[in-house]
Amino acid sequence: MPDKGLLLVFTGNGKGKTTAALGMAMRAAGHGLKVCFIQFIKGGWKYGELEAVKRFAGLIDFHVMGKGFTWKSENIDEDTRLARAAWDFACSAIANNTYHTVVLDEFTYLLHYKMLEIEPCLQVLAQRNPEQHVVITGRYAPAQLINAADLVTEMQAIKHPLASGIKAQRGIEF
Amino acid sequence: MPDKGLLLVFTGNGKGKTTAALGMAMRAAGHGLKVCFIQFIKGGWKYGELEAVKRFAGLIDFHVMGKGFTWKSENIDEDTRLARAAWDFACSAIANNTYHTVVLDEFTYLLHYKMLEIEPCLQVLAQRNPEQHVVITGRYAPAQLINAADLVTEMQAIKHPLASGIKAQRGIEF
Repeated sequence: MPDKGLLLVFTGNGKGKTTAALGMAMRAAGHGLKVCFIQFIKGGWKYGELEAVKRFAGLIDFHVMGKGFTWKSENIDEDTRLARAAWDFACSAIANNTYHTVVLDEFTYLLHYKMLEIEPCLQVLAQRNPEQHVVITGRYAPAQLINAADLVTEMQAIKHPLASGIKAQRGIEF
Repeated sequence: MPDKGLLLVFTGNGKGKTTAALGMAMRAAGHGLKVCFIQFIKGGWKYGELEAVKRFAGLIDFHVMGKGFTWKSENIDEDTRLARAAWDFACSAIANNTYHTVVLDEFTYLLHYKMLEIEPCLQVLAQRNPEQHVVITGRYAPAQLINAADLVTEMQAIKHPLASGIKAQRGIEF
């Protein structure tokens, strides 16, 4: 029986969403399976991840999209255009059957802030190769995405050190 | 200012605890920092992780402890002896200042099932090198551990595919 491709969502306000997606990419690559990791928030990935991923050259393809989507946008039209271009790129990765897993890291923000319509996105996900896994991370996963997903984990912040004034540190935050 | 070593806890019933610890190990190794990853549940790690970690030889040291601690133990004395030996090994890793990060994967079970007393464990953690990070994963993190931690994320299962009858798959579950 072939694998059934899953749609996995890591959401919530706690630490560990992108980190878990990174661990999944590494695990798949450990099996010799190809992964496309697309980061939708520019600057979200720092030196540690970028250097680590280099050790999986040819197995984990890493791409940074957009220009740093935020809710503080000063030019909604331009942001929407960039969001669509980033999604088009993701669609081409999803259509590429050499990828066992496609990670759309911090993608939920584009849906939450209405830079993309959710229905066409869900359609693309539903019509993908049935053996391909897709991992989506980010806060505020819309209810429709959660409904469509096979596995959803909500990372809930019980305690966070930045809240108590400890600076971001290498190997922890980046 | 030197880094402040954090005590991080990934707990809850959702997927992503060990996976996030794996991502953190990879991120630290990306910085060229040494990690000791200790797995307290034998068989918890499978081929994918093991092969992936090999790409970080010299940076991520990986160890499997115990014999598969469970709550179905048939020999509590033997389990307790193994749990103490595993913890002694963890103590030597924590005392080894070459490790930037020590991961105690699925360690909470040993506390939850009272195979170890929590107070002496918390004392060892409190007295470690103040720059060293420790990551502890597993369900049922005791309240005292949560109190002692700097960062706690609870991974909550909103949906899980094994509950709906989909088999475990390579690159996803192992």
